[in-house]
Amino acid sequence: MSKIRIGIAGYGNVGRGVEAAIKQNPDTELAAVFTRRAADSFSLNTPGAKVVNISMAKDYANDIDVMILCGGSATDLPEQGPEFASMFNIVDSFDTHAKIPEYFEKVNKAAAISKKTCIISVGWDPGLFSMIRMLSGAILPVGNDYTFWGRGVSQGHSDAIRRVAGVKNGIQYTIPIDKAVESVRNGSNPELTTRQKHLRECFVVAEEGANKAGIEADIKNMPNYFSDYETTVHFITGEELKKNHSKMPHGGFVFRSGKTGNDDSNNQIIEFSLKLDSNPEFTANVLVAFARAAVRMNREANTGAKTVFDVPLSYLSPVSNLELIKKLL
Amino acid sequence: MSKIRIGIAGYGNVGRGVEAAIKQNPDTELAAVFTRRAADSFSLNTPGAKVVNISMAKDYANDIDVMILCGGSATDLPEQGPEFASMFNIVDSFDTHAKIPEYFEKVNKAAAISKKTCIISVGWDPGLFSMIRMLSGAILPVGNDYTFWGRGVSQGHSDAIRRVAGVKNGIQYTIPIDKAVESVRNGSNPELTTRQKHLRECFVVAEEGANKAGIEADIKNMPNYFSDYETTVHFITGEELKKNHSKMPHGGFVFRSGKTGNDDSNNQIIEFSLKLDSNPEFTANVLVAFARAAVRMNREANTGAKTVFDVPLSYLSPVSNLELIKKLL
Repeated sequence: MSKIRIGIAGYGNVGRGVEAAIKQNPDTELAAVFTRRAADSFSLNTPGAKVVNISMAKDYANDIDVMILCGGSATDLPEQGPEFASMFNIVDSFDTHAKIPEYFEKVNKAAAISKKTCIISVGWDPGLFSMIRMLSGAILPVGNDYTFWGRGVSQGHSDAIRRVAGVKNGIQYTIPIDKAVESVRNGSNPELTTRQKHLRECFVVAEEGANKAGIEADIKNMPNYFSDYETTVHFITGEELKKNHSKMPHGGFVFRSGKTGNDDSNNQIIEFSLKLDSNPEFTANVLVAFARAAVRMNREANTGAKTVFDVPLSYLSPVSNLELIKKLL
Repeated sequence: MSKIRIGIAGYGNVGRGVEAAIKQNPDTELAAVFTRRAADSFSLNTPGAKVVNISMAKDYANDIDVMILCGGSATDLPEQGPEFASMFNIVDSFDTHAKIPEYFEKVNKAAAISKKTCIISVGWDPGLFSMIRMLSGAILPVGNDYTFWGRGVSQGHSDAIRRVAGVKNGIQYTIPIDKAVESVRNGSNPELTTRQKHLRECFVVAEEGANKAGIEADIKNMPNYFSDYETTVHFITGEELKKNHSKMPHGGFVFRSGKTGNDDSNNQIIEFSLKLDSNPEFTANVLVAFARAAVRMNREANTGAKTVFDVPLSYLSPVSNLELIKKLL
């Protein structure tokens, strides 16, 4: 059987992660990377794969089985999603939670005409965490959901730090509070405030001569981002930032704490967690598994916009159903 | 929309758990319990539901949307599975791992003729643990799987204890070894022997005047069951056994410890765990969610034998796709 020909639209951290993930999946191959940058401004790690200006993507409709959109949710995907859905099966990681229903509709409209299969909002949250929330809520209808994020880098909060006067550079880690996680794990079904769930830890490189006490106060009092949290601020050098904080770790926990039995008397705890050295690489690996599913669903004429809730798990695997039953059931 | 009419075949611990689970799911109702016992020998917790001799099940083909088979895997299900698949949509928890492919074939053959939808081997292992193994292996093709069971009661090992000369009653708990779980969680990808993964803890009620040292030695040296493990034996009274050991807790951990990136340099850990006060009640709740899916798949003419790998997650939920997207994605 011929390999699944994958296109990558956008060659940032996630796009490079997808390229690496394709090498781990022998039934897939990278056909081309589509980018706004000049084709000769960078090189791929995949011999034979093309770099193509993204405006020429339509010429590749017959050469790509599925396009993985690796652009950002703020400005890239709202345009690219519907546009590429009119030409390709697509998978993306659109993650602006509040706008997902609207985005789904737009992609679905385009895919209905093109008869393509487009799985949106794939990754780990939205993505795997959503799947676990849905699955565990269906199993334990009487119960509570808890999600904790971290320890990991929040891009939005890091950007907020860097906008503070006197800050040259900085990074923010979201950290789940052990005591809160433990109280959920033990089935005590706590009501947790924002402050009780997560800490925020900031590493800041100040400009020369800047007022550090002022910077620290400005960060800690910033509404929405920090004022509702226990926040710590550490001042470090630019070298330390580069040396100790250039990875992109992340992760988190999803819990369903439910009750069963005639008098709802028995506690049942479902826990799912991720501990990721590299957030973009892990997201990329999830995207490639769902790209396989998109192609298979399209071959079965199961078209339109889809989410992680619509995909039978076996479609994510290159292994035959009989082997899955024998080895993993 | 009318409720999903569920039949329960077999009214043991799991069957009673299904009855309780139905009450937690407003879109389902218990139509009848089918049993080999005399219909007047016990009563249900559900007003209006019938108790019917299992030999009369065929008369209820039009009154039951899905039959949940709650018999044992050793002798009940190998017969009942194919037989009921010829009349009903079914869901069962067949868990004799080595015989699942053969059982699947037999159920599939019957369901192909009846055009029913039959989801086999549903529960938590096989079941949820299988889903996580499959999903996480598809996402992280380079990596290792680890499964730990417990702390929980093993029925097979408890039975083995009770067959030892001089033993009046007893129970066995399988306990994952913390150090092993921790080494997996930390990404060190250990190679673990049987003895390094689980402990076996036995609580034994000896017959009067029995040789306790002999019983302890007989248990600890029992091949297959105990000799490959660190086993502890505690002698307790019948009253203590009843008071402290009559619940059926269980649970466990599934890990995928994988690598991503161009040089497979980043660790990525996926962990799923269950901590269950009642193993049969939890299994029952999983069965009811998959019963909903079986009915929906059958309405869409998606018939034959199925496993947990074949079911889109949204089919497990009574909530509409749009609401799932809004609330859980």
